[in-house]
Amino acid sequence: TMSKFIGNNLLKLGKKIVAVGRNYAEHAKELKNDIPTEPVLFLKPHSSIIRKGKAIECPAEVTELHHEVELGLVIGKPGRDIAKENAEKHIAGYVLALDMTARNLQDAAKKKGLPWSVAKGYDTFCPISDFIHTHNLPRPHDAALWLKVDDQLRQSGSCRDMIFDIPTLIAHISSIMSLNEGDLILTGTPSGVGPVRPGQVITAGLTLDNQTLAEIRFPVVERKRSKL
Amino acid sequence: TMSKFIGNNLLKLGKKIVAVGRNYAEHAKELKNDIPTEPVLFLKPHSSIIRKGKAIECPAEVTELHHEVELGLVIGKPGRDIAKENAEKHIAGYVLALDMTARNLQDAAKKKGLPWSVAKGYDTFCPISDFIHTHNLPRPHDAALWLKVDDQLRQSGSCRDMIFDIPTLIAHISSIMSLNEGDLILTGTPSGVGPVRPGQVITAGLTLDNQTLAEIRFPVVERKRSKL
Ligand SMILES: [Mg+2]
Ligand SMILES: [Mg+2]
Ligand SMILES: [Mg+2]
Repeated sequence: TMSKFIGNNLLKLGKKIVAVGRNYAEHAKELKNDIPTEPVLFLKPHSSIIRKGKAIECPAEVTELHHEVELGLVIGKPGRDIAKENAEKHIAGYVLALDMTARNLQDAAKKKGLPWSVAKGYDTFCPISDFIHTHNLPRPHDAALWLKVDDQLRQSGSCRDMIFDIPTLIAHISSIMSLNEGDLILTGTPSGVGPVRPGQVITAGLTLDNQTLAEIRFPVVERKRSKL
Repeated sequence: TMSKFIGNNLLKLGKKIVAVGRNYAEHAKELKNDIPTEPVLFLKPHSSIIRKGKAIECPAEVTELHHEVELGLVIGKPGRDIAKENAEKHIAGYVLALDMTARNLQDAAKKKGLPWSVAKGYDTFCPISDFIHTHNLPRPHDAALWLKVDDQLRQSGSCRDMIFDIPTLIAHISSIMSLNEGDLILTGTPSGVGPVRPGQVITAGLTLDNQTLAEIRFPVVERKRSKL
């Protein structure tokens, strides 16, 4: 459809991915983190995005590659200091996204007080679905997310359980950094995150009232490269 | 000139800013950090870039805003797993850049093992100069950087003192994330970082053999915004 075409091109225009950590209480607990009192924000590079037909690549130094299934917001209208009550107007649509994470590198960075950017930023670490127009997801907090590794269900959650809801996230993020057309916000993952290995396949879906609005499938492969 | 026009447009095309922390030994020591054994990388959002005529905005919660003067590399040719010996071919030019940092927020994040993205990512936190073509800076490691706050010289360093040199940075970064046209790499700051307050003015320059290739001037102002 025309709106899908526009939405997928909007995603190419975007420059930044702002991701929210620990936005579901059960997930914060499973990684032994405190429930945050304000959104935990980090950036993933746009170069980490992959679309259908591509594979998630696991480099040798990533000994613990974790899946995190998330609802992604696609910004359609630029804004800064956006008020909560206007937040919805800035959303053009949604994607189902995976916030792939090198958990071993993230754990090491956390211990040393170092940035998360490498742990979150490798090429292929942000697989996303086709664009979902807001018309097709009128109540995003009622969406449900699931994720399987091969045949095993690993994550199954409801966007109702976000600690900071979508308007709060947009207001908070835009008070720090301006949001522009095509920018992507990853809203956090429900519990059940865990490891995947090369040879396994991740499938995930986003549903509303038991109707599937997006489904993705990404195989995990080894990242091959010549040594530096 | 034509190449300046092309370079400045290249900067608009870019999507990511990869910054290197602790790449000068004297600076690592002044913040009481260890000398790193591999480059410390973090991302700044493209939305933090400002050009001449704009001001650096200091939000109320940023009680300690620090200046860091840095040499920026502008990528002209996309690449992944770039070998050190080919790194130079991927650079279209340079900018003089300020990696503005909310040191109070960064210190708090480091203590909690949280990301640096907010501390480094506010709007206006990446002032840059006009584009400098590679022809005009044939020996980037011989460049010198200086920074003044009002009339006081705060930073004065040589790119010769980088711990990880430019080819090493490009090889390392591109082994993690692909580099694309217009992407910007901030190569780290020499010692002398320190606070600036609204009302002060930052000037900085990049010289080669005592010839000025770039000079920038950015006033610091309060960021005004309505409360969330
Ligand atoms: Mg970015
Ligand atoms: Mg996540
Ligand atoms: Mg810096």
